[in-house]
Amino acid sequence: MTAPLITPRTLKGFRDYLPQAMIARERLIGTAQRVYRSYGFSPIDTPALEYLEILTGKGSDETDRQLYQFQDHGGRHVGLRFDLTVPLARFAAQHAGELGVPFKRYHIAPVWRGENTQRGRYREFLQCDFDTVGTTSVAADIETALVIHDLMLAIGFTKFTIHVNSRMLLNGLLQRLGVAERAGDILRALDKLSKIGHDKVVEEMSRTAGLDESQAREVLRLTQLEGTNEEILDQARPLVTGSEIGEAGVERVSEMFRNIRAAGVDDRRLRLDVSIARGLDYYTGVVFETFLEELPDIGSVCSGGRYDNLAGLFTRQQLPGVGASLGLDRLLAAMEELGKLESAGTTAQVLIAYFDKTRLGDYLRLASQLRGRDLSVEVFPEPKKLGQQLKYADTRGHAVAIVAGGDEFAANNCQVKDLRRAESHTISLTDGVDLLVQTIRQILAS
Amino acid sequence: MTAPLITPRTLKGFRDYLPQAMIARERLIGTAQRVYRSYGFSPIDTPALEYLEILTGKGSDETDRQLYQFQDHGGRHVGLRFDLTVPLARFAAQHAGELGVPFKRYHIAPVWRGENTQRGRYREFLQCDFDTVGTTSVAADIETALVIHDLMLAIGFTKFTIHVNSRMLLNGLLQRLGVAERAGDILRALDKLSKIGHDKVVEEMSRTAGLDESQAREVLRLTQLEGTNEEILDQARPLVTGSEIGEAGVERVSEMFRNIRAAGVDDRRLRLDVSIARGLDYYTGVVFETFLEELPDIGSVCSGGRYDNLAGLFTRQQLPGVGASLGLDRLLAAMEELGKLESAGTTAQVLIAYFDKTRLGDYLRLASQLRGRDLSVEVFPEPKKLGQQLKYADTRGHAVAIVAGGDEFAANNCQVKDLRRAESHTISLTDGVDLLVQTIRQILAS
Repeated sequence: MTAPLITPRTLKGFRDYLPQAMIARERLIGTAQRVYRSYGFSPIDTPALEYLEILTGKGSDETDRQLYQFQDHGGRHVGLRFDLTVPLARFAAQHAGELGVPFKRYHIAPVWRGENTQRGRYREFLQCDFDTVGTTSVAADIETALVIHDLMLAIGFTKFTIHVNSRMLLNGLLQRLGVAERAGDILRALDKLSKIGHDKVVEEMSRTAGLDESQAREVLRLTQLEGTNEEILDQARPLVTGSEIGEAGVERVSEMFRNIRAAGVDDRRLRLDVSIARGLDYYTGVVFETFLEELPDIGSVCSGGRYDNLAGLFTRQQLPGVGASLGLDRLLAAMEELGKLESAGTTAQVLIAYFDKTRLGDYLRLASQLRGRDLSVEVFPEPKKLGQQLKYADTRGHAVAIVAGGDEFAANNCQVKDLRRAESHTISLTDGVDLLVQTIRQILAS
Repeated sequence: MTAPLITPRTLKGFRDYLPQAMIARERLIGTAQRVYRSYGFSPIDTPALEYLEILTGKGSDETDRQLYQFQDHGGRHVGLRFDLTVPLARFAAQHAGELGVPFKRYHIAPVWRGENTQRGRYREFLQCDFDTVGTTSVAADIETALVIHDLMLAIGFTKFTIHVNSRMLLNGLLQRLGVAERAGDILRALDKLSKIGHDKVVEEMSRTAGLDESQAREVLRLTQLEGTNEEILDQARPLVTGSEIGEAGVERVSEMFRNIRAAGVDDRRLRLDVSIARGLDYYTGVVFETFLEELPDIGSVCSGGRYDNLAGLFTRQQLPGVGASLGLDRLLAAMEELGKLESAGTTAQVLIAYFDKTRLGDYLRLASQLRGRDLSVEVFPEPKKLGQQLKYADTRGHAVAIVAGGDEFAANNCQVKDLRRAESHTISLTDGVDLLVQTIRQILAS
């Protein structure tokens, strides 16, 4: 009697990555690592599980509800991290002495949220964050924008815009109007603008924050300035004049655009967008959102900003910083939609057919020689019919197949098949593998 | 009144990876990925959380006890994976139709075990597995050995030995002796050899498996054969003669060594070690363990073998396979002990000092130009005193610092400091950054 089978299945909201998707994901991770490292950001890692008290109350009520939490074997209350910012705060406070400042780190790791799974969202997803901690310098703000810029180009996007705002502009206006302490209510009203329209927002600002109509209209005016970056700054300046934080904000944003130009980056990739309200409750300075011109509807693919104090719940040491997070899974979906994903289901460019079953050692040696020349090579593991092996190569997406049997070994050559073009070449091995490597590289490059 | 601080700490048995350790870990992961891919293994990923029924009863009683398990928001009983083999079995069964065979995958991901934390073992650690599923061919066994071999060399080890055994040899002997069905008890007794000695093992084999003394002595003789690989095979052959599985086992092992030589690999790196008993209860064919000659005590750093049926609990489809797992964290510890780990706390080779505070744009542009030439460059974010910035470079481990102030900008050059040798060069920028890049590369290479 055989035991009943267990149904092989993943949990709702979770997914497997098959080779095709995982090859694309690994490539994207590699690109992000390369760009982060080129700016001197260093990798860190933290445990998936943290003490519950470290995690709760740090995000929103929503993240608290979504937290995967339980008691471990020692009766400790623990939870799976829901983002990489709270672990960074804990990490920075715990290792502050050893790390020193400025501290530049990146962290690419999964996070877990037990949220509703509609809209193709998953309960486990990868975050890909970089931050500069321990400095208030505008140079770090500028660098954050440059990293986002380089990241998008390195991934293969040319049509993108980094939207920039600064919480200091709004704070400056509110300070000038004498309503700075009501910022929270005002932001909540502003956030509804696209849904309820101007008049209702004015009404709500009056009701919840006690602004009179002219004050509310002035707040709305700031968030709707239009024109070039310089034109918007020129219009914003009088709105914040007399407020220290507002004037400093205009100056920082202006310095940012100036230096991004000086660094040789096309500053039209950055757009001062004073309508960004999302994130302004958390961030205290500059805010970034990045949109793909070809797919604006998927929302920002790289968001971040400056904060005053990263780890106030864990240490009395003030740790200001700035950073952003690449929405890796969202970007993968976007790249798929735009046809920017290669569709290979294999990592090997070359398949060597196992054709003559007495020649395994020869096939293995040839494979090893090609690997020594930086080619990825798979040897089919069984001496099956050639047709079956070529069908396998086709399904997997190998670009080149090498076939050699008795005739080829006798003549010291091999057949090289360009599988995408269904062409075949006979290549001599008399002078080693140079000619073979050259032929394969030509096929791969064409 | 300020709120009381939450103590920033990690859970017992868990650890943070600071930049220095994480840079080394990322390098090791990158090496493993490169080697796996060069053989055509493709990456996959599976969820950290699985249905509990998928995980329990698949490892040992010990892994069951160590499982992190709880009920999720939907009341489902779930657990954190404790290895990557059970998820592979579930994955292979679930996606069998789409994947096809042979299916070659690698999987590098954390696993969790709530085990005792003595001996520097952690409750969260990275596994790094590769497997070829869906073929019984000896070619896949051979390739597994070649991958382990290339992996060790690529990581930087030259003094290692891959110990090879095959469950088929022991099975062959037991079949010849007519005691094949008592293999489990016999293996358990054998496993105690180093602790209790020959006589006690013979005694236990008699008591638990019913072997007479001459049978028990013959089993012990097989597991203690010594000599070259060929000599051991010659001695093993008569011990299994007449047993189909035993003769096939000798032939497979012999074919393996022959083909590894033919592939151009020094076969003295592989040693037939019939004393390996560990893992033989799980594996059904070849077994691998890899030891560092300089650090034999840390045990095997890469282990694996062949199995008959990966996913029998999830599907009626027979899925034989072979693979191995690189003990990444153990290797990291070994490399640290052998002084093989670079100790950089930064990913950037070059630090550009922020010296003249009116020149931020120039520093940023220079950094961008150097990044375009594949150098990693950090611009210090604040115009602090030069001494402080150089101290930072020293602490972090930057190899080169670039300093430019008013004089240098006027002369269109910069100071390049070789920080390890405390030497300084003045480099002209009149003809672009070619000379600067060349100077930096010389410093890095020296």
